Amino acid sequence: MSNYDRNAPETLKLLESLFENQDFETILEIFRELHPADQAKLFYGLKTDQQEVLLEQMEIPEIADIFDELDDKQTVIAARNLPLPFLADIIDDMDPDEAADLLGDLSGQDVRKTISLMEEPEEVLPLLRYADETAGGRMTTDFLTLELEDSADSAIQYLRSTGLENDIPYYLFVVNKEKSLLGVIGLRELVCADPGQIISDIMESNVISVQAMQDQEEAARVMKHYDLQALPVLNLQNQLVGVISHDDILDVLVDESTEDIYRLASVSDSALEPDSRLFLQLKGRLPWLLLNTITALIGSWVISNFGDLFVQVA
Amino acid sequence: MSNYDRNAPETLKLLESLFENQDFETILEIFRELHPADQAKLFYGLKTDQQEVLLEQMEIPEIADIFDELDDKQTVIAARNLPLPFLADIIDDMDPDEAADLLGDLSGQDVRKTISLMEEPEEVLPLLRYADETAGGRMTTDFLTLELEDSADSAIQYLRSTGLENDIPYYLFVVNKEKSLLGVIGLRELVCADPGQIISDIMESNVISVQAMQDQEEAARVMKHYDLQALPVLNLQNQLVGVISHDDILDVLVDESTEDIYRLASVSDSALEPDSRLFLQLKGRLPWLLLNTITALIGSWVISNFGDLFVQVA
Repeated sequence: MSNYDRNAPETLKLLESLFENQDFETILEIFRELHPADQAKLFYGLKTDQQEVLLEQMEIPEIADIFDELDDKQTVIAARNLPLPFLADIIDDMDPDEAADLLGDLSGQDVRKTISLMEEPEEVLPLLRYADETAGGRMTTDFLTLELEDSADSAIQYLRSTGLENDIPYYLFVVNKEKSLLGVIGLRELVCADPGQIISDIMESNVISVQAMQDQEEAARVMKHYDLQALPVLNLQNQLVGVISHDDILDVLVDESTEDIYRLASVSDSALEPDSRLFLQLKGRLPWLLLNTITALIGSWVISNFGDLFVQVA
Repeated sequence: MSNYDRNAPETLKLLESLFENQDFETILEIFRELHPADQAKLFYGLKTDQQEVLLEQMEIPEIADIFDELDDKQTVIAARNLPLPFLADIIDDMDPDEAADLLGDLSGQDVRKTISLMEEPEEVLPLLRYADETAGGRMTTDFLTLELEDSADSAIQYLRSTGLENDIPYYLFVVNKEKSLLGVIGLRELVCADPGQIISDIMESNVISVQAMQDQEEAARVMKHYDLQALPVLNLQNQLVGVISHDDILDVLVDESTEDIYRLASVSDSALEPDSRLFLQLKGRLPWLLLNTITALIGSWVISNFGDLFVQVA
């Protein structure tokens, strides 16, 4: 993994011919050499039946990584025809925020069945109650909490014991028994502290946070304004329920600024699709270009037919 | 610091009256309770003479923090009337990438004088050779490097010895004697490794990087695509010369997506200012609105004067 794939179109062409020869082994080999972000891009470029064959050949964690990277709509399409027990295993392995988005897009009956088949639904369930475009809809439940009286050393031991599978933010959050947020400490500050120092002495107690029901755009603006790598999200009881990480917010900021400006430029919402941007942008502006052209045509027709009158009036 | 300031307009009003009473002590007190991002926002809202008075009252590191947060143009304006030795001290304390941007915006003679007055110009000088909108122009020289044969424990000791003043990314980069980039290791991976483990065994050796001369937008796209918190920047000799961090890239992505769409919407470049966006957006679209109005006026004049002819022709 982690090769920066600058040759996606070539790779896709290669894959096409490998699919024709049913050489699934080589296809998997190519996929496994790529970063999940590039795997997702390639996967999206395949035909539906090719995607299905590929999913049959892949391990659950591999599929979960690709699903994490696909756009929400693409994930639903890819998940559509999977047997629910298989899908439940994949969702168990996905990032909780992406898993919640996928579950939220399934039909009502499938959601309930899939959740009942999941091994660890408790990470995802709290996220289902927030709309996609809220801070709660963007947050993950994958974060680590410390207590005031922990020592720096015990905090590091705790971090080590959790392992590295999950993409936990570089901030650790300090809460009390009621889960109220009391402070935050960066991993760097934790590493540089004396091992015996108590968390309450080294944490930052003025924590910037947002409410779960707030708009994702507000969360994004706060993170951008304060250069935060992670933003804690509180529920109405001011309990820490999740964390938004910097990469989630990149997407929001780009989407939202695009959306705002499209609106101002009177471009229709269909032009907001991130894919084939140029095409959609042109499509969005076409009615206006057409209107301009018609106006110009009428103008020139008027002038060519009644030019003499203009001269007379002048 | 770190209070999330939702009441900037009220605070600004309060400051105005404090300035009238020359109560600089209370003004400084208010400033010091705020996050530098909010300090910068307030500072920008002050009149030029108020800004000047405030800068006289503040400590050098405080000014450097505010300058780091101001937009490039705002920083130049604030720095314009400062005595060069004073300015040199501030620039010494600023983030290297912001310092280079400011130096790049000073007049030629001032740049040379200011650099000669600086204590640590060596962090900033390499950055001056890259244009603002390139990866090199966005990177910082504030990063930590390790060697292949270092142990995890010695790497952590080294991190501790560097202190916390600087905003060093959460990734550490592995280089050889020639400064070629060999690998990268996240702080979390470092903390979770066995103390005796050798860096070459735990680092990721497939490092995604960009060339210093590449466009900042390309760097931003790579960081967004791969969810990177920091992106190493290489010179033509493939030596590691800098690192772009996630907060720099937020600005680029938002600016660039705004810029792209403005261009497509035929809005002039002046509308790209991030401040008072609505005003500038309206200003940018005004010529078009005006043109439309004029067209409509001419049309209605033609129709009202030659309406009979239209009927005859039809």
